[in-house]
Parts: sequence; C-alpha cells; structure tokens
Amino acid sequence: MKFATLKDGSLDGRLVVVSHNLRHAVAVPTIAPSLLDALQRWDAVRLPLQDLSDALNAGAAPGAFAFDPAACAAPLPRSPQWLDGSAFLNHGRLMERAFNTPPIPDFDTIPVMYQGASDDFLGPMDDVPLPSEADGIDFEGEFGVVCGPVPMAVSAEAALDCIRLVVQINDWSLRALGPHEMKTGFGFLQAKPSTAFAPVAVTPDELGDAWQGGRVRLPLHVQWNGERFGEPDGREMNFDFGQLIAHAARTRRLSAGTIVGSGTVSNASRAAGSACIAERRVIEKLDLGEIRTAFMRFGDRVCMRACLVDGSEGPFGSIDQRVVAAG
Amino acid sequence: MKFATLKDGSLDGRLVVVSHNLRHAVAVPTIAPSLLDALQRWDAVRLPLQDLSDALNAGAAPGAFAFDPAACAAPLPRSPQWLDGSAFLNHGRLMERAFNTPPIPDFDTIPVMYQGASDDFLGPMDDVPLPSEADGIDFEGEFGVVCGPVPMAVSAEAALDCIRLVVQINDWSLRALGPHEMKTGFGFLQAKPSTAFAPVAVTPDELGDAWQGGRVRLPLHVQWNGERFGEPDGREMNFDFGQLIAHAARTRRLSAGTIVGSGTVSNASRAAGSACIAERRVIEKLDLGEIRTAFMRFGDRVCMRACLVDGSEGPFGSIDQRVVAAG
Repeated sequence: MKFATLKDGSLDGRLVVVSHNLRHAVAVPTIAPSLLDALQRWDAVRLPLQDLSDALNAGAAPGAFAFDPAACAAPLPRSPQWLDGSAFLNHGRLMERAFNTPPIPDFDTIPVMYQGASDDFLGPMDDVPLPSEADGIDFEGEFGVVCGPVPMAVSAEAALDCIRLVVQINDWSLRALGPHEMKTGFGFLQAKPSTAFAPVAVTPDELGDAWQGGRVRLPLHVQWNGERFGEPDGREMNFDFGQLIAHAARTRRLSAGTIVGSGTVSNASRAAGSACIAERRVIEKLDLGEIRTAFMRFGDRVCMRACLVDGSEGPFGSIDQRVVAAG
Repeated sequence: MKFATLKDGSLDGRLVVVSHNLRHAVAVPTIAPSLLDALQRWDAVRLPLQDLSDALNAGAAPGAFAFDPAACAAPLPRSPQWLDGSAFLNHGRLMERAFNTPPIPDFDTIPVMYQGASDDFLGPMDDVPLPSEADGIDFEGEFGVVCGPVPMAVSAEAALDCIRLVVQINDWSLRALGPHEMKTGFGFLQAKPSTAFAPVAVTPDELGDAWQGGRVRLPLHVQWNGERFGEPDGREMNFDFGQLIAHAARTRRLSAGTIVGSGTVSNASRAAGSACIAERRVIEKLDLGEIRTAFMRFGDRVCMRACLVDGSEGPFGSIDQRVVAAG
C-alpha cells in the first residue's frame, strides 16, 4: 500500500491511499482519518485499507481523484519520535573530516543516532524557512522507516517486524551550527531544523526486490538548482533498519508512528556523487585541495527522488523544495 | 491556576483544575478535554479555566472531588517536544569530571540542550521500568516550563512571555550509557529513558515571589529510599528559561505544549546536597578521595518535591517513584 497525507489545516492532516503509479488517490475517512490514527490501530485498519488500495489500483475505487503531491503534507505531519541514525559509514567518516571532530568511538559497531523535532515536519513541496544563509544551509537525502509500537529492548530481528512503512527524507541541516553542538556532547538541536518528507509512504512489500536485508536498495537521485548532485544507493547502509530501531528502543518504548532515519545516503564510490553538500565539500578538499562549493542560498531548490532501474520516479514521489528567509 | 491530568486510557489523559492547596480538583470537559488541547487553544480557554479555578478555591465548584496524585499521569502525558538544558553550571562542571569528558565549549555563555523522547512520559507515582541495573540508574531533579507556540528566532525576553506553565521533573538517566553517547557527538538517547513529572503544572503567577528572573526560586527536596539526598535551590540557574527557550527556537518553531527543562538543579554550596547520584559520586571522589555511593537498584524509590519556606510540600506536589525491572 501507498499512503499520503493531504493538508487540511489539522495537525495530522487527511489520509489518502495512493495508487501504485502515484496518479490516483482516494480518501479513507471511514477507515482512518489520519495516517497516525491508522498506525495506532494498524491491525484493525490494515485489511480495509488493503481492499481499498486494491480497488484503487483496479480503477474501481469510488471517489478516486488525481493525486497532487503539491497538496501533500509529510505523510506524518507530526510523529511521536523522530530518531535519525548515521548508518552510512562513508558519510560519517567524511563528516568527521568536514567538521574536524574526533573519530566517533565504535562507529562501525554501535549505531549513532540523534533525536530530532517531530512536531513540525515539512511537506514535499513546502518552502523551507530558515533564519540565515550564514548558518550553512544543507540538505541530507535519506531513507527512513515508520514503526508500529516497539517494546523496550526489542531485538534487531524482531524490530524488522515492527516496520510498517518506508519513507524518503530530507534532513535539513545547518552546518555552521553542527560542530559546536557535537563538541558539547549534547548533540544536534539548532543544527537540525524541520525535516521534510517525500509525499508517499509505502509498505515494505511495495518495494519488491528493493527492500532486502532491512535496507532500501534504490539510488536516491539528488538535484540542486536543476543540476545533478548525486545518486548514492541505499544498499551500503552499515546497520539495517532493524538494528537502528533496536538501538533506539534499548531503554525506551517507541510509540506507533515513530520514524527512524538512515542518515545521509552515501556510497564509497566517488562516482555516485553525494546526497548532501557538506560531503561534496570535504571530497573537494581531499581530492582537489580546496573547497569549491558553497552552501545553499535563499531561493535555491533541491529535488530528491529514489529512482527505479530505468531512471523513472520511484515509489515515494519527489521532494522538491525551495529555501527561503524566515520571518 | 494549577492543572493535573488524570489517567483515562487515552494518549492525552483528562484535564482537571487543582485547588491551590492540592486537595481538590474538578474536571473541565466542556472547556478542554486535555491539557494539550487547552495549550493549543489557550487564548480561548484561559478565562473560563480561571473562573473555574476561582470557584474551586472558593469551595464553589460543582463536581469537585478529592485530588489524588496517584491517579495522575504527567501533566502532559505526551508533548510536541521535550528539550532539556543544563543550565546549572555547578552540575555541568561536576558532570564533566564524573564522565571524564572534555570541557563543554562556551558552557557559561551558550546553553547546551538535548532533545528527549516526548511521547511516553511517566506520571508522578508510576513505576519506572528499566532494562538493567548495570546501566547506572540515576534520577535528576529539575524544573521546567511548558510553552505556548514559540516563533522561530524568538528573543530571550519575548520567550518569557511564551511560558504558560511551570513543572517539576525527574529526568531519569542511565549513567553507564551517557559518556559514550556524549563522545559520539550525537547526544543522549539510550541514556535518557522516559522522563517523569510531578502531578501539578502551575501558571507562573501561582509561584508568587518564587518565580523571578525566569527562574524557580524554590529548593527541590530529594529523598532516596526515605533518606535525605539534597535540597538544591532553583535560583542558581545560569541561564533563565527565556534564554533556554530562545536557544531551542533559534532555527525552529516550538509547538504549543513544548516542554523546556532546566537540567539538574545544583548549587555551588556542598551543604545543599545533590539532585542526582552522579553528582554526589563525583563530589565524594573529589572531597573524600573515593566513590562511596552506588547507583540505584531495582526496588529503590526516589521522592522529589519543591518545598515552601516552612518545608511543606510546594506547588507541584511530589514525585514518588520506584525503579523496577522491565519485562
């Protein structure tokens, strides 16, 4: 199944089921008003939602309408928790050099993860209001999963069964603020403004062969102001999503709707390009001897989409956002 | 006004207004079903709630009943954000020595703050289920504020006007996990399980002279297994709550109901004792040459209450919790 949330002025928005080809949608008010509600009552709503999804894909859903990503909020406009890992070791190692911070201890054996704000997510085509270009505005292309209820101390294997949906994320970051916050030991706060999501959240089965080993095996195509920036593939995650969820739940329960992120998708091959500017900058410094790329300016756009083998838009639709001055 | 939330099986619980002396309460279903709802519609509900509070304190509120802290959830069982500072420099400096971590840069001029889980708070008398005694189970007595909506980049002065309620907090901590998470730079996650709250949240005016300069000028009396542990006073906060809120909102909006914490209350005078075990342990090491106090065991209790000048229970009621094995 594929889901999206239409903006309707409420905190949780209005749930719609989306067709496989992302062309059609249908509201489901009699089953679940919002995606958060559906996740809280998953066992009761899953089959009715599946029936409606089947009907929609057969062209037989009454009330179906054209799906418009521009009308979408994030699939979950607010969530109980947003926990973002850094599971692509290539990214983490490069960021240590970009930030000039000490090596993260046990980085390849123990996941790292910060807790971000989950009350004010951005939709896929929402403007991104930020206070200052001097903060080092950067995007971070990621994959993530949405969980059902997760018990404390769940195993990594059992955690895989807690995954309800897979999502695509832009974890907006302010690079001028990150190194200080890392050095305090308290982690990212100001460096992580509101996070954005591609319009469509999908059940893992929708990904077919692209969901293997608790990883999204798809390239994430990133464009900045219309120019190719990179297309790193999700398969190089050092920890799978089950391991990330288990790490998050080691000493706490996770409520239904909790989102766990992969961290910036990043591949060892330089040919893949990057899914964030900071990574390109440190590669420039390493490979060319100097940083050539500046961070984003107000008015800049970033577009991100996971793509299928033929290069067409993948299962999550596209993030296409513009950075603007807050105020 | 004083508020509490009775457990009723829902995620947000049932709002009640509590009398000044914490003896009586009255439900307010026609005004606001939950405290979160009241905070989201504060301008519309403030006066009706005040009228009912006045009637309750005059003994003239129909349907009033005896207030029972044991029936309470946290005032906000879930909240949009939970952001905890470390505004008592005495605590922070001691913890650097306890954790053997590098000095936090600019600690006395820039607040530090981590984002904690806000979907699963504990009530004042709830058991605290934790996975292992080996994690170094510790309490942290704090004060906090609950905000109305806060705009991005608010000033510290304007932020004081965003404060709706003041609360008392036990920020449960797992000390064996903290140093590693600080060294990753990503901040506390496993080291911070569910946070607990005293039963009663109060508007700042309820504190009278004890609310000055954006600080709670009350001693926080802490008992561990019935023995006095300390009574540090809230007035030694290096940053006031306006500064902490402004720090949190530098690059993000805060939704109504966001909670900002002071960090562990701590005084420079050794005579005040401590509001967490880790602090006592490092003081023992510094002053006595060896650590003599172990962390908590399953079955241990901690009691925390802000007290008035005469030593009587203060405006928030008491936290009285027992640590138990999860499972």
